[in-house]
Amino acid sequence: MGRVGIIAGLGRLPVVFAAEARKAGLEAVAVGVVDNLDPGLAGVVNELRRIPAGRWQEIIDALHDMQVKEVYLLGKVGKGRIFDPNGLDSRFLALTASLREKNDDALLQAFVDDLEREGFVVGEQGRLLPHLVPPPGVLTRRQPTEREWRDIAYGYRIAKGLAGMDVGQACAVKDGVVLALEAIDGTDACIRRGGSLCGPGVVAMKVAKPKQDLRFDIPVIGLDTLQSLLDVKGSVLAFEGGISFVIDREELVARADAHEVAVVAYRPDMQIPA
Amino acid sequence: MGRVGIIAGLGRLPVVFAAEARKAGLEAVAVGVVDNLDPGLAGVVNELRRIPAGRWQEIIDALHDMQVKEVYLLGKVGKGRIFDPNGLDSRFLALTASLREKNDDALLQAFVDDLEREGFVVGEQGRLLPHLVPPPGVLTRRQPTEREWRDIAYGYRIAKGLAGMDVGQACAVKDGVVLALEAIDGTDACIRRGGSLCGPGVVAMKVAKPKQDLRFDIPVIGLDTLQSLLDVKGSVLAFEGGISFVIDREELVARADAHEVAVVAYRPDMQIPA
Repeated sequence: MGRVGIIAGLGRLPVVFAAEARKAGLEAVAVGVVDNLDPGLAGVVNELRRIPAGRWQEIIDALHDMQVKEVYLLGKVGKGRIFDPNGLDSRFLALTASLREKNDDALLQAFVDDLEREGFVVGEQGRLLPHLVPPPGVLTRRQPTEREWRDIAYGYRIAKGLAGMDVGQACAVKDGVVLALEAIDGTDACIRRGGSLCGPGVVAMKVAKPKQDLRFDIPVIGLDTLQSLLDVKGSVLAFEGGISFVIDREELVARADAHEVAVVAYRPDMQIPA
Repeated sequence: MGRVGIIAGLGRLPVVFAAEARKAGLEAVAVGVVDNLDPGLAGVVNELRRIPAGRWQEIIDALHDMQVKEVYLLGKVGKGRIFDPNGLDSRFLALTASLREKNDDALLQAFVDDLEREGFVVGEQGRLLPHLVPPPGVLTRRQPTEREWRDIAYGYRIAKGLAGMDVGQACAVKDGVVLALEAIDGTDACIRRGGSLCGPGVVAMKVAKPKQDLRFDIPVIGLDTLQSLLDVKGSVLAFEGGISFVIDREELVARADAHEVAVVAYRPDMQIPA
């Protein structure tokens, strides 16, 4: 029986992945590297160790000790910890110190390379989760209005440009105005900031990078994302269809329908209803 | 004697411009279109009328009435008012409704075109103010460190990319990490947000657009910009040299020196001190 290792950050993605791994007849073990790990993770893995992300050598040692070869990076790990030197071990510091520009790709690639030097294989996030990736289309009963379709298309182009610079992958738009762009603060903060600047009706867009590494940074949409939008009375939650993960999709769509929010898996070449 | 008209937004730029116009032997008249107009403006123009930006027809009428042909757009007018339909007259609404994407260039161009249809000539902001544009170089006693020079260069590239999408012209960087990008919230909010996310030492960068229209949106740096940086214990205030305006430069540099902040008029091809 195969065994996979998970380096688990925030959110439900590590839990869903581990559950699917089990269904597929694999053993899953995990190292939880963030404080607010989803409490459900412990119940779906054979073993869970908790080691802060900054103690990178211990994480490596734990993965060896748990005898995994295949490792998956799942769930967000805030980049802000770079500014808190307390608790960063010398291996972590050496990896990040060598980078002049600490954009997400450069940082993650450095950690992936280090895992590979240790003999691990870093797997693609989507390997066990194809059913979490909606094809292009509108998931909700409520369809976007004409104005919203225009904002979706504009937001897609802006978010792609941003993702091409590897600074963030999301933006908030309303009525042809880009209100907020994601940087280190993350998607939810971007949606909340944008929505707070324009009153009801903000359109949120999250995309993959133009050259997306399928091992990390694939867009993830979940109940938290929707809640951020609902809290600012937003009207559309859009993301790149065919690649983004939607977690807890049934509940997300039901809750969106209850609030008349449109949820859209967008592609620039999709057929837009007239 | 010539006479110039100013459509005056926030900040000291309209005041400085009007004072220079007078020194050059011109008469200056102004329409103040924002609530928090600099109180010094009234003292340096021959006539000042106050009309909110949304009452566009009245602004046009006032400029005709004050018998100006040459008009300058000076000082920031927040784009957020688009989301407050109260007080937008039918001419303002017609101009903005025709735009699918309300980025700064599209919006300003629509208003400039409308002024030109009315027979006005919209002048270049820098016409009377070449002495406000520092050439590339470090303005302060304190020189950037090697780490800060790297952040300046990285921030320049990111801000230029952002400005090329016409969403904002500023960003905040520290230690190779892009912390915040300007969108509708403006430069000061971007600096404060970025600085609040990383502790002391943020580097702020503000640039011109890749295809800068010299009649509007030229970067402006002033005491408010510096204060935003000081409030988050930032360490470098950088902007594009050779095009940006620095207002109240002597006081700005003195205050920066007092706080050991480096102020840098940057160009990517400038000689960086070893």
